[in-house]
Amino acid sequence: MQRIPLGMVGGGQGAFIGAVHRIAARIDDRFALVAGALSSDAGRAAASAEAIGLERSYHDWREMARAEAARPDGIRAVSVVTPNHLHLPVARAFLEAGIHVILDKPLTATLPEAEELARLTEATKALLILTYSYSGYPMIREARRLVAEGQLGRIRLVHAEFVADWLARPGRAEQQGWRADPALGGEGGAIADIGTHAAHLATYVSGLPITEVAAELTAFLPGRQIDDNGHAMLRFADGAKGMLWTSQVASGSDNEVRLRVMGDKAGLDWTHADPNRLRLTRLGEPSQTLTRGGPEFMGSARLPSGHAEGYLEAFASIYTDAADAIAAGRVPPGLPGIQDGLDGMRFVAACLRSSRADGAWQPL
Amino acid sequence: MQRIPLGMVGGGQGAFIGAVHRIAARIDDRFALVAGALSSDAGRAAASAEAIGLERSYHDWREMARAEAARPDGIRAVSVVTPNHLHLPVARAFLEAGIHVILDKPLTATLPEAEELARLTEATKALLILTYSYSGYPMIREARRLVAEGQLGRIRLVHAEFVADWLARPGRAEQQGWRADPALGGEGGAIADIGTHAAHLATYVSGLPITEVAAELTAFLPGRQIDDNGHAMLRFADGAKGMLWTSQVASGSDNEVRLRVMGDKAGLDWTHADPNRLRLTRLGEPSQTLTRGGPEFMGSARLPSGHAEGYLEAFASIYTDAADAIAAGRVPPGLPGIQDGLDGMRFVAACLRSSRADGAWQPL
Amino acid sequence: MQRIPLGMVGGGQGAFIGAVHRIAARIDDRFALVAGALSSDAGRAAASAEAIGLERSYHDWREMARAEAARPDGIRAVSVVTPNHLHLPVARAFLEAGIHVILDKPLTATLPEAEELARLTEATKALLILTYSYSGYPMIREARRLVAEGQLGRIRLVHAEFVADWLARPGRAEQQGWRADPALGGEGGAIADIGTHAAHLATYVSGLPITEVAAELTAFLPGRQIDDNGHAMLRFADGAKGMLWTSQVASGSDNEVRLRVMGDKAGLDWTHADPNRLRLTRLGEPSQTLTRGGPEFMGSARLPSGHAEGYLEAFASIYTDAADAIAAGRVPPGLPGIQDGLDGMRFVAACLRSSRADGAWQPL
Amino acid sequence: MQRIPLGMVGGGQGAFIGAVHRIAARIDDRFALVAGALSSDAGRAAASAEAIGLERSYHDWREMARAEAARPDGIRAVSVVTPNHLHLPVARAFLEAGIHVILDKPLTATLPEAEELARLTEATKALLILTYSYSGYPMIREARRLVAEGQLGRIRLVHAEFVADWLARPGRAEQQGWRADPALGGEGGAIADIGTHAAHLATYVSGLPITEVAAELTAFLPGRQIDDNGHAMLRFADGAKGMLWTSQVASGSDNEVRLRVMGDKAGLDWTHADPNRLRLTRLGEPSQTLTRGGPEFMGSARLPSGHAEGYLEAFASIYTDAADAIAAGRVPPGLPGIQDGLDGMRFVAACLRSSRADGAWQPL
Repeated sequence: MQRIPLGMVGGGQGAFIGAVHRIAARIDDRFALVAGALSSDAGRAAASAEAIGLERSYHDWREMARAEAARPDGIRAVSVVTPNHLHLPVARAFLEAGIHVILDKPLTATLPEAEELARLTEATKALLILTYSYSGYPMIREARRLVAEGQLGRIRLVHAEFVADWLARPGRAEQQGWRADPALGGEGGAIADIGTHAAHLATYVSGLPITEVAAELTAFLPGRQIDDNGHAMLRFADGAKGMLWTSQVASGSDNEVRLRVMGDKAGLDWTHADPNRLRLTRLGEPSQTLTRGGPEFMGSARLPSGHAEGYLEAFASIYTDAADAIAAGRVPPGLPGIQDGLDGMRFVAACLRSSRADGAWQPL
Repeated sequence: MQRIPLGMVGGGQGAFIGAVHRIAARIDDRFALVAGALSSDAGRAAASAEAIGLERSYHDWREMARAEAARPDGIRAVSVVTPNHLHLPVARAFLEAGIHVILDKPLTATLPEAEELARLTEATKALLILTYSYSGYPMIREARRLVAEGQLGRIRLVHAEFVADWLARPGRAEQQGWRADPALGGEGGAIADIGTHAAHLATYVSGLPITEVAAELTAFLPGRQIDDNGHAMLRFADGAKGMLWTSQVASGSDNEVRLRVMGDKAGLDWTHADPNRLRLTRLGEPSQTLTRGGPEFMGSARLPSGHAEGYLEAFASIYTDAADAIAAGRVPPGLPGIQDGLDGMRFVAACLRSSRADGAWQPL
Repeated sequence: MQRIPLGMVGGGQGAFIGAVHRIAARIDDRFALVAGALSSDAGRAAASAEAIGLERSYHDWREMARAEAARPDGIRAVSVVTPNHLHLPVARAFLEAGIHVILDKPLTATLPEAEELARLTEATKALLILTYSYSGYPMIREARRLVAEGQLGRIRLVHAEFVADWLARPGRAEQQGWRADPALGGEGGAIADIGTHAAHLATYVSGLPITEVAAELTAFLPGRQIDDNGHAMLRFADGAKGMLWTSQVASGSDNEVRLRVMGDKAGLDWTHADPNRLRLTRLGEPSQTLTRGGPEFMGSARLPSGHAEGYLEAFASIYTDAADAIAAGRVPPGLPGIQDGLDGMRFVAACLRSSRADGAWQPL
Repeated sequence: MQRIPLGMVGGGQGAFIGAVHRIAARIDDRFALVAGALSSDAGRAAASAEAIGLERSYHDWREMARAEAARPDGIRAVSVVTPNHLHLPVARAFLEAGIHVILDKPLTATLPEAEELARLTEATKALLILTYSYSGYPMIREARRLVAEGQLGRIRLVHAEFVADWLARPGRAEQQGWRADPALGGEGGAIADIGTHAAHLATYVSGLPITEVAAELTAFLPGRQIDDNGHAMLRFADGAKGMLWTSQVASGSDNEVRLRVMGDKAGLDWTHADPNRLRLTRLGEPSQTLTRGGPEFMGSARLPSGHAEGYLEAFASIYTDAADAIAAGRVPPGLPGIQDGLDGMRFVAACLRSSRADGAWQPL
């Protein structure tokens, strides 16, 4: 099978998420990373490219989009792992050059940017795929399938959380760089950075859009301009309700993601600390622990059950689906794209509005 | 050691919580149950008393209070396990007779009743103890101690939940009897019945009163007059914040109680599914799993760690502390009494008000 | 219901297991403890009796057996919680006086004593019940029921362990008192004290007797005369095989008991750290987590599932079954009696023989 | 950094472990797979090579060794993922051609072959690395480090297990192909296929060689020529003792690997079901849950703790260490090589001997 030539914008030396994207793109061997503008600093771009053995290095992503589009062997897709405020202009440059965009979340820094990107995406043939990476976990996909099949009955409750403690101590906020600066990362702090993952899981699995939120965002750490903790009550379409908690100051929480979806027939419980299992309880029956073993969802797994797959494999599944989507010319249901990104930005904006209005319910 | 003569009002045949109180009172052998008005129906009262070998049986608790107060060997304490609307009159009768009252939660059916009972309690020498039974778990007490000692630092976050699914299916609501009738059980459903346990744990361990709530109470089951699910955002004294979830329709949740308290130095995590362990994580250190083994909290345990203690032992610790309190003539800090009960009723009332005001923050 | 008058031999102040028996006997209120020879020291016997409000105190168990048998209101059953070497003479005195005996494990200090007690028991009408307390856990009983029903198919593997670390540090062995002295406690150390619990669970649940063992017993702590760790390979009737590990020096093991039974259709996994759940996996299906909730085994539980029951409730179930057995005049299958005790002593003896023969297989 | 040109022998279409090796080699991007003899069948070799986009395809590994050694851009290392009986001849061909060998476990089909391969390896400059993949887990490496540092004190007990149920049902044995045939896979069944992983973990972490075993190997499934279950008691150097259980018929066991190592100061507990955590209990202190978070062992991890890494990342760490070893010209301690492989084969041979001698202790 032919590997898809891939480029990357951002992800220079020391950048965490860029390295994750590169591993994820490699795992199933559907992409070949051949070009990059890994940094806007020319020297750092070159050094970063050499460190990873990149064939073609740029330091200007506009130039990269132009040059790659012009080459017969140019990249067909680009991974965008820049600070949030660059998501829109970078994505635009590549989409307009006919190059597919694989974008790290959140979609953009602001909701107006997100809406502009949505219009842009609609107007091009190039695809936009968003790496809501938790949706690549086999058991999350199985959960989505079970809900879609109606096995939970009508959904009543959706509870999601993504809680961590990496900013619980003073001094850490500064290390956040652009993330801590509303002008670069956007006005949302924890709520945008990790809360959107939780919100995406909630809607991805339940199949229900969030219609309203009542939120309280807090910056616990002194001097922090954006929230490091978010509490929200949720209303979903069709009468379902829920809560969402996201935090970067939840002392003792080790990047804990949990999703519970309960219907009038059964309930599901998944936690990132034990990602290869999914608890399914049909009312009146013993809980079942589903694993990757069932033939129906081995499709998104590489190993027999019992052998842990993890975050990188989940991320790789997004890339592999992206390769399939590129081959098919469309983003299929189940693979996060522009609509998921727009929903995420609307969720963040509504939480910000609600928090400023002392928790009054706000529509998305 | 002399056993304290104990009576019981309510708790006739088939009543779940009455049997729990009787076991709890027996475990540490500090009480001797000798009298009861187990039912207001004379025949049922007699049959129930005979079934458990009770010496003195009444069917009228007013008469029981009078008669027992008059006997030289009369009861010195009474367990009240009636429907909520009877808590106030029954407690009053015994308190005024100089008999200590051990009352099942919630304190009363309504907030005005609770306030009246508070005034009453203040005016008598007899003690009122409230069986917020989860506060009897050794690890909950250890958690409270750790917070009080300052080991968590300043508290930022308190998250509590008590979720179950026993009313998730139609037809179960009716089996709730007086609990489902606002006139007898009070206007709060899940929020009063089990949500108050969660709220009590939150304040008991954190040492911080809840000052404001923004809540959404829902009756998911058709025909239900009171809530079977409650979502709340919480504000505590001293700037701490939190969330509380209580549900009787959370499909797949097997009476799951969880409490997380996070400060600027450390965080705690306790769950009812694993009650003999407590996770303590100091920032920058590995998580520790505390057990009942430490000498400092063996006081409230009967067995070496590794041997599970459970709900009945926790409940028994409340009774044993009640025996000590009766001997000492006062309810000590750490043993739930009238103030805890009043706080609980204020919490329920504030949640009801907030929910009716579409989630607007309400002071307690 | 009439309480059965109960006596106790052993269990004076400071004795752990005596207090456990007393709580267990109280929980379901089927016994009234009225007499005791709590110590062979007259002063200590009297003080211990007074401390627990015992009506009739003896310091000579022979005298107690005689006197109680002669009283019209004398005890009908006695709990024997003495050092092991007294099990036989004490049990004999009461059995011969027509008083039922509830005996703490192991049955006796030596196998010849056990065989003598077996002959004695056969010759009397009085019953002998042995408190293999783990067999009182609701999920262990459910496990036994599932195997007996054939739901696991033909049993292939039985793995049992009981590992602890309370003797891992020097100096602790001495605190063991009579347990550390082969003349009083018997030649088996960990293998007799806790290994017999594991062996009993293995046979109780699988329904298969152990036919042969190959064992290695070790005294890791310097100066210790009896084993503090035992490894054994097991052969069961009908071709099943297994392993058993027992230890008092397994650093970090908090009285961890685990039983796994696997057949050609399904497997079971139970652990003392999570006693209210039982994992059942039918081949080719997801694992199920059974709880006390199912109607078929609520008989031995007091609380709805989700509310932890623990060691004391398991122990209490043995007492409650003993009360039923006394009423019925026979020890029913499922309640440990003389045969279970004899099997346990044969297991210990075979392990000792095998270990001395450098692990050669020994029949039981 | 320059990628090391890599070849592969075996691993054609449908071969599970070949695909795992390829992903593992890609994850950290230190190797470029450029050549392969993926099958001995010419057509299948070509089709398999094309399916994965391999540059140079062979169907004869002897020819491949010759040709690649002759090319200036030839492979410098080869992954050998053939049936066991080919390990020796294939490894020999490449080692003699000066090409480093990365070999799947077990080392060979028989102990004499293993000894021959050991002599061969000693005589060449080319390196031999064995993919005992579980030793690549960050927490296993941390466990090894803690023991080596003396944090556990003197080791007393080492318990290891690798239990699965994939052969628990009739008919599955046949799907095992060469593994079920003693002439191709070797005389050991489960004991060689997965038992060697457990034995390796036991010695890798404890730092102690196994000196003697007493074993019972069983073929539970009718018609099976090699064991599908193995029980063993272990003696280690320096007086430590242990047990090992391996099974392919342990119904309900989902490739469960567990390692417990206990010393006179502390104990460790690791399980494959939760690979990113390690329980460390120092005597007299609460258990600690170590994660990948500590700076000292982030070296072998790619993600912050809380984000699951799994089997593929562990496997990748072996490859990455192999790349470092190739650069350094020697296999460092901690990376499994010929000695680990030879120890594993001696363990299997001793278990086979002991089992035939009815469990008599056999030296390794």
